[in-house]
Amino acid sequence: MSQPDRPATTAREWHLLQRPAALPSAEHFQIVERQLAELNDGQVQVDNLFLSVDPYMRGRMRENAVYAEAYELNQAMTGGAVGRVVESRHPDFSPGDTVLSLNGWRDRFIASAQELQKLPASAAQMPSLFLGTLGMPGLTAYFGLLNIAQPKAGETVFVSAASGAVGANVCQIAKLKGCRVVGSVGSDDKAQWLLDECGVDAVINYKTCGDLTQALLTAAPEGVDVYFENVGGDHLQAALNAMNPHGRIAACGMISGYNDAVGQGVNNLMLIVGKKIRMQGFIISDHFDQQEAFLNEMVPWVQSGAIKSRETVFDGIDSALDAFLSLFNGDHFGKAVVKIG
Amino acid sequence: MSQPDRPATTAREWHLLQRPAALPSAEHFQIVERQLAELNDGQVQVDNLFLSVDPYMRGRMRENAVYAEAYELNQAMTGGAVGRVVESRHPDFSPGDTVLSLNGWRDRFIASAQELQKLPASAAQMPSLFLGTLGMPGLTAYFGLLNIAQPKAGETVFVSAASGAVGANVCQIAKLKGCRVVGSVGSDDKAQWLLDECGVDAVINYKTCGDLTQALLTAAPEGVDVYFENVGGDHLQAALNAMNPHGRIAACGMISGYNDAVGQGVNNLMLIVGKKIRMQGFIISDHFDQQEAFLNEMVPWVQSGAIKSRETVFDGIDSALDAFLSLFNGDHFGKAVVKIG
Repeated sequence: MSQPDRPATTAREWHLLQRPAALPSAEHFQIVERQLAELNDGQVQVDNLFLSVDPYMRGRMRENAVYAEAYELNQAMTGGAVGRVVESRHPDFSPGDTVLSLNGWRDRFIASAQELQKLPASAAQMPSLFLGTLGMPGLTAYFGLLNIAQPKAGETVFVSAASGAVGANVCQIAKLKGCRVVGSVGSDDKAQWLLDECGVDAVINYKTCGDLTQALLTAAPEGVDVYFENVGGDHLQAALNAMNPHGRIAACGMISGYNDAVGQGVNNLMLIVGKKIRMQGFIISDHFDQQEAFLNEMVPWVQSGAIKSRETVFDGIDSALDAFLSLFNGDHFGKAVVKIG
Repeated sequence: MSQPDRPATTAREWHLLQRPAALPSAEHFQIVERQLAELNDGQVQVDNLFLSVDPYMRGRMRENAVYAEAYELNQAMTGGAVGRVVESRHPDFSPGDTVLSLNGWRDRFIASAQELQKLPASAAQMPSLFLGTLGMPGLTAYFGLLNIAQPKAGETVFVSAASGAVGANVCQIAKLKGCRVVGSVGSDDKAQWLLDECGVDAVINYKTCGDLTQALLTAAPEGVDVYFENVGGDHLQAALNAMNPHGRIAACGMISGYNDAVGQGVNNLMLIVGKKIRMQGFIISDHFDQQEAFLNEMVPWVQSGAIKSRETVFDGIDSALDAFLSLFNGDHFGKAVVKIG
């Protein structure tokens, strides 16, 4: 059987050069070009279609990493990516297959078959969705809300970073489960989208609302039963102030502090005692065994339009750093992805 | 049947006059003397033997009370008390019975039978123990440690305010359950008692140890699995720093902030996410149904000497405020009680 012509083998990868102490910038990174080797038996070459940028990656740039092991200096960073198989020496993969991997931050790569997850044929029509609503952020929203926070129908759920890749799914899943949902976002556009498209009951623009506790009490007059925590600092403080007895906090992230040496302070933690609140941190990589249950419920919701997604697509491997930085300056809307090639 | 002579009927009660904004002082309170009425059918007169003073009472002096409803101004405050029945017009109570009630902060009172819990005859020999190790603080320790924090044998438990009425019981119960125990206290005397008498593995004097996180990492070289939170602020910060993945925090109180308008700040809460920590507040009055299970296990421990108790006894109703204030300046050792009459 004749081999096809070898595909392009020049790969471009983002390396971490030094660990940022504050907001990352170009000097902390470098794009490195290298030639991929010939495939060995069992290996597959993938050309990436979309790369994911996610807030957790900031934690991995620290020496004492959060969420997963620290990125090594002078190595390609990793992250979610959807790509297309272009050459295969493994029987389970054929050119044209769409695959999910953790080999992001690069345009192409060679991997062993066990590093790849084959996606259904339909994924070719919406590959980036597997980095967002049907991928890690969607699973984070689903598991964190339903298994960690455990809202009951009729309860009020408050979601920070509510139009983000995780937050928008939390909002919509909570609505589908019969909850009243209040979101916090940083622009009126994002607020309007949540209200008009996602059916969220009330949205706060935290940049213009004045006192966040007062705004939350107004938006949630019956108090907050569940807080899905993506932001920390002022948002956590306000959520505690507005929370009902026996409230639950799913602590998914605290992005407001990711670029500071120390996090944002919170000084009303005594309310955790007084209101008998349960605050539970989680990291979704501990719970990938929930993926099947998640997709069984989520895919029909997406197909029926019950759950909507927004993306900000950055174009080309060179834009990956801008895409990542957009997570911290609010310049993205929904899930930020990088389109390759 | 002839009535006995009426016992003394002049009662002295501590009233709250104004709500303290910071550390309470004499001006916020007043001792009021009043005459008790004749007993009606179903009523009992009790002369208190011991009054309890507990940190939670500070929360009840606030307008927006914590732990239980706010104390009303110009009314006798309430709190745990052990007393002796001196007159009864209820068939279940006879003069000489030892009873537990919430009618503390006064030397005698008239109550209906359902406000009183009759204690076993043996309680007459150790009445104050039912305000401490065998009472609300002991139940708080038992339930908070075993049901909220759920330590496993071999795990390391960190306890703040470790020689206090709750903390000393947490330390000793954790030892009986096979844990390694590290306590934090504010004096070398207290540290020595925990080490010598209570079998605690390591004790930190937080006033002299320098950096609390470093001291805790040294005292708990394998990290902290469970933190029993009585203090807040620096102690919570250090516990989070030293905690292992999947650590649990039983949030019982945060006394370091009780006299401040806002609590002590904590700025490393992102560790709740990164370490997947569960922090759970609780208030023991929700769990009084656990009392039987508690006493079944605790009474034999106390009788066998497996659990030891320390008390600081303040003498006379006039000393009740000093007893209460000793909770905040560290001038007590173990359970602070007020002996009446």
